[in-house]
Amino acid sequence: MLSKNQIKKIRGLQLKKNRQAEGLFLVEGAKILEELLATANTEDWVGTYQIDKLWITEQFASKNKRQLDALSTLAWELADEQSLIQAGTLQSNNAGIATIRFLKPSLSKSTQLIEKEGLTLVLDDLKDPGNLGTIIRLADWYGIKQLFCSPETVDCFNPKVVAASMGSLFRVQIQYCDLSNFLAQYKNKIPIYAAVLKGQNVHHTPMAAQGLLLIGSESHGVNPDLLPLVDVPLTIPRFGKAESLNAAIATAILIDNWRKGV
Amino acid sequence: MLSKNQIKKIRGLQLKKNRQAEGLFLVEGAKILEELLATANTEDWVGTYQIDKLWITEQFASKNKRQLDALSTLAWELADEQSLIQAGTLQSNNAGIATIRFLKPSLSKSTQLIEKEGLTLVLDDLKDPGNLGTIIRLADWYGIKQLFCSPETVDCFNPKVVAASMGSLFRVQIQYCDLSNFLAQYKNKIPIYAAVLKGQNVHHTPMAAQGLLLIGSESHGVNPDLLPLVDVPLTIPRFGKAESLNAAIATAILIDNWRKGV
Repeated sequence: MLSKNQIKKIRGLQLKKNRQAEGLFLVEGAKILEELLATANTEDWVGTYQIDKLWITEQFASKNKRQLDALSTLAWELADEQSLIQAGTLQSNNAGIATIRFLKPSLSKSTQLIEKEGLTLVLDDLKDPGNLGTIIRLADWYGIKQLFCSPETVDCFNPKVVAASMGSLFRVQIQYCDLSNFLAQYKNKIPIYAAVLKGQNVHHTPMAAQGLLLIGSESHGVNPDLLPLVDVPLTIPRFGKAESLNAAIATAILIDNWRKGV
Repeated sequence: MLSKNQIKKIRGLQLKKNRQAEGLFLVEGAKILEELLATANTEDWVGTYQIDKLWITEQFASKNKRQLDALSTLAWELADEQSLIQAGTLQSNNAGIATIRFLKPSLSKSTQLIEKEGLTLVLDDLKDPGNLGTIIRLADWYGIKQLFCSPETVDCFNPKVVAASMGSLFRVQIQYCDLSNFLAQYKNKIPIYAAVLKGQNVHHTPMAAQGLLLIGSESHGVNPDLLPLVDVPLTIPRFGKAESLNAAIATAILIDNWRKGV
């Protein structure tokens, strides 16, 4: 059962400063916990995550007995719905809560993979948690393994991002770093694409099999400091009158064009 | 100034039954009001909408004086922020509120246009207001003029849909009708495409210049009763492990593939 202290500790993980101090984040609800059990320790599982602890209802435990048994080292306990609701952010939760430990990935190891891995996404100051969660899911759909974010981008362990990512968070490695230094490493190695308002029509621009795709927020676009590092500015052609597309929609269209072409 | 009765009447428009009884919907905030003033009475303006009344702050009135003067028949009044917040759904509103009268479009007139107009979107039971608003914006971006929705689809005049559509609502005609009867009219005339889980790969399927694209919800997909009417089931190819894509993201990718091909 969840003690008062445990409830307090888990509630604390709704705040970024506590997640960073503890090195833990929180996932909750049936759908994402089922994805967690299915993904943990498989080859898809982000190598720097470890399940810390799991509190689940009897109902969820009996429904997922086989997966729980398969994860032999997993520490789990039963909990009642009322405590799960108190500890988490959901209005109802008849499944459970897990806390996940995240270790700092090795930036140098991750960056070595970029030149072999197809397209890698780079997000500049995306503030909306729903958009980030949707982009993580998109990356997972299209087989993109890594996502690099500017320090000002919303924290990927924010409960709203976790919810919107629907389990794809467990399969896509996400790192925060200074984007100028990061992009500069790849200049003249692999092409750096960016979504901008007045660039080349993505329908008529062939894209390379390996590359970086930089996305800014809908309201501010890509930071002007980063533009000199961009090799190919890309634009989604507009046929009507809408002023802009949101960042997740634009990302979807650009990734799909890349996949279609390579 | 907004009277207590007016505030009450506008507040009532947050509910669908009142919108339908009054034939009015509500728009609020600077961005969408500026789009309203820029679009009203232009050739893009949905022909069945009329601005009923506008309450705006002095600040918004002076910033948009030219557009207000240009709409000579427009009835507008000054209002203070406090009343605007009381009447509307926004937590802050230093711009204004408008009520818009919507007349029932002629279904027969609209359907005549479909065979000439490129792609037309057909939405089956989409419940999420953010998704519908995003799809209206997408339609507007790609120059799609009409959207047909099943009666169970969220109301397009719901304040959250209006906000997410960001003014594109004024340029895209939206109608609700029984989709079986609606689609049956086009059988063997123009192709009926649908987004499904196991269809033809959209990257390798040429699409016709004129057609209908049917989209279901992420969780339920297209209603099985409608599938016999579909000519070409389309699927976005998956390269990774995410289980599904949300309806707005899938719509974006399919429309973009259509536009790229024709």
